[in-house]
Amino acid sequence: MVASSPSDIRAQALACRDAAQQLAQLSSTAKAALLEAMAAALEADADAILAANARDLAAASEKGVGTAMLDRLALNPQRLAGIAAALREVAALPDPVGTITRDDVRPNGIRVQKVRVPLGVIAMIYEARPNVTADAAALCIKAGNGVILRGGSEAIHSNTAIAAALKRALREAGVADAALTLVDDLRRETMLELLQLNDLVDLAIPRGGEGLIRFVAEHARVPVIKHYKGVCHLYVDRAADVERALALLVDGKCSRPSACNSLETLLVHADSAATFLPLADAALRARGVQLRADDRARQWLTDAQPATDEDYAAEYLDLVIAVRVVDDLEQALAHIQQYSSDHTEVIATEDPQAAERFVHALRSAVVMVNASSRFSDGGELGLGAEIGISTTRLHAYGPMGLEALTVERFVVRGEGQTRA
Amino acid sequence: MVASSPSDIRAQALACRDAAQQLAQLSSTAKAALLEAMAAALEADADAILAANARDLAAASEKGVGTAMLDRLALNPQRLAGIAAALREVAALPDPVGTITRDDVRPNGIRVQKVRVPLGVIAMIYEARPNVTADAAALCIKAGNGVILRGGSEAIHSNTAIAAALKRALREAGVADAALTLVDDLRRETMLELLQLNDLVDLAIPRGGEGLIRFVAEHARVPVIKHYKGVCHLYVDRAADVERALALLVDGKCSRPSACNSLETLLVHADSAATFLPLADAALRARGVQLRADDRARQWLTDAQPATDEDYAAEYLDLVIAVRVVDDLEQALAHIQQYSSDHTEVIATEDPQAAERFVHALRSAVVMVNASSRFSDGGELGLGAEIGISTTRLHAYGPMGLEALTVERFVVRGEGQTRA
Repeated sequence: MVASSPSDIRAQALACRDAAQQLAQLSSTAKAALLEAMAAALEADADAILAANARDLAAASEKGVGTAMLDRLALNPQRLAGIAAALREVAALPDPVGTITRDDVRPNGIRVQKVRVPLGVIAMIYEARPNVTADAAALCIKAGNGVILRGGSEAIHSNTAIAAALKRALREAGVADAALTLVDDLRRETMLELLQLNDLVDLAIPRGGEGLIRFVAEHARVPVIKHYKGVCHLYVDRAADVERALALLVDGKCSRPSACNSLETLLVHADSAATFLPLADAALRARGVQLRADDRARQWLTDAQPATDEDYAAEYLDLVIAVRVVDDLEQALAHIQQYSSDHTEVIATEDPQAAERFVHALRSAVVMVNASSRFSDGGELGLGAEIGISTTRLHAYGPMGLEALTVERFVVRGEGQTRA
Repeated sequence: MVASSPSDIRAQALACRDAAQQLAQLSSTAKAALLEAMAAALEADADAILAANARDLAAASEKGVGTAMLDRLALNPQRLAGIAAALREVAALPDPVGTITRDDVRPNGIRVQKVRVPLGVIAMIYEARPNVTADAAALCIKAGNGVILRGGSEAIHSNTAIAAALKRALREAGVADAALTLVDDLRRETMLELLQLNDLVDLAIPRGGEGLIRFVAEHARVPVIKHYKGVCHLYVDRAADVERALALLVDGKCSRPSACNSLETLLVHADSAATFLPLADAALRARGVQLRADDRARQWLTDAQPATDEDYAAEYLDLVIAVRVVDDLEQALAHIQQYSSDHTEVIATEDPQAAERFVHALRSAVVMVNASSRFSDGGELGLGAEIGISTTRLHAYGPMGLEALTVERFVVRGEGQTRA
């Protein structure tokens, strides 16, 4: 592999932007066919992709990488079939480009429409999982965007083989294959150069740990959609149904603790504590969950450590939960406002007034009444697919689907109207 | 005036964020009443505001400021009445907060809505015009946002007097008056500190010359909506109606040359040149417009200078226009793609196919068929008011109204559904 210089990354981004202009002109039918062809190309190249993945795995093993990381990196025929199937699902999604979101005739007779167009060029910065190379490329291309993929060094052979298949499908569709650009120079200074190209790159989406996201956000001149962390709360109200609340707690904490939409803190109304907490304690301990709680909660818990301020701010991503008893809904809201990561908050209550107060008082990306925080996901919320989750309030907030890869612009049609 | 230290600006932003939480809770009715009260407070303080403005004008005169700048700075009873009237118009606009943009029941029975919420805290960075202090504050507050106003030093007394009136109305409505924070420390390092507060400020909107906008965009860690410039094009197609095209040209260039939505470049199809250009030449010269044209166009123009590459890239904001004859629509599109500032492009044509090709090939914020570029304005496009214009494709693109000061988030209601 020949190392690129910073000017190479600029040349690559320029080529991607030009190719993106071609993508933006494709009809919905043509884009769906292109994505089907990309899925077929992945299947046709299965042997080459798996061989490349074996090289990555061997190198990672040699470096003594842990089993969790090896598992994220590993491809096999089933996983590859899953990636191709995901591309076909994206192919079948409705195309957001061209959607008319406003249509209005002004008093002077001009017709004003707002119509979705692609963002342009999207840079994805991500870590180990090679499936992101195909998933992210598919979503960006479906929405008419060029995509610059900057994955991790541990997956470089897998990513290169996947990108080669996808680029062939682009060329066969008559689109310059720079529409999908895999950065092969993984030096940090080249990534920094990419993040400065605000005349060419319309959006950067980092996917990975908080360290990666902060690095990108701190060094980027291009716009960045940030997903810092998910400190998701469940508040069990005075008027909660105990069985429902318990199911939400167990699902939210235990069904996939490493997910950002898992629960990290349980808040319980003082009037519910004596009933709810012993049941919660038994259910969580039976599943190996450690509890860290305030003094009031600890009265009803068997083996909880005292909770510190850090516990309430923590995204454990593990079988640990912070617990606190609150005097009332308002104290629960104050707690959430103080510690929230603006990701997902849940209330368990049968009291419609308490539910509405909770929904209106909080401005997190996803606020739920009597539903599991684990539904805070693009697929579960009906977006069809998810390119990322935004925990900052600009452009997109919460799980992002295809629509978040477009922007509305104005189309005006008149009959010669003038203003003066 | 006591100079603030950088930590003061952080404390001010924190107070603004807390006050914004209160604003976000207000009903639409309460916000409308608040804006009416702000208008009344401005009227009640008219003498004080005009006296403060007189101090600014005297200081500016002493500094030898030009008449155009003095005019932008000047208030009088009529202008003040206009500002109060604008506030009442904003009061009467529909409230974007709470609007449901998606409402969907998933197969598992959870109901998923997307609902508009305020962005949070918006920093306005602007120059001379004191009316921006009231206009921008009104729009931000109407959409439930706190606002930090950093105006120019030349208007500091006017801005302080206007802010004092508006803050009184906030207090009387029971909202902490930090919801509207006027920065009184105008040192550049304090503005830089404000632009680093990405944990407190959700969006910065610079309004002013390109220099100010580039300065803000280059130094900000907070998200910035940028309006670099408006190099707006009129393309007169082979199938243009000559009278209509001429009216679009004269209105677009001459009705307010200093506006960003004025025309800067005229492109003419070769087949229309002999008919259209002599008429355009006469009409423009009669209005004092200088022409800079390519060799083909100059055949039909009386007194045009040769156009350079810089002319085609220029935002003149003056009675000057660049002219070029193109072979066909595709060459016009290529020219616009090369020189566009992504602001506003117009085609004059009676050919529906040419019109649709123009609309689909270009991704500028506003694309028009047979309508004057001067309609590229929030009020004219039906947004009710305009907080700014975005020429970059994230969050908002083109003229921005109240909706652009909000973001959609998810509200989910279930009956205890879990995912596992």
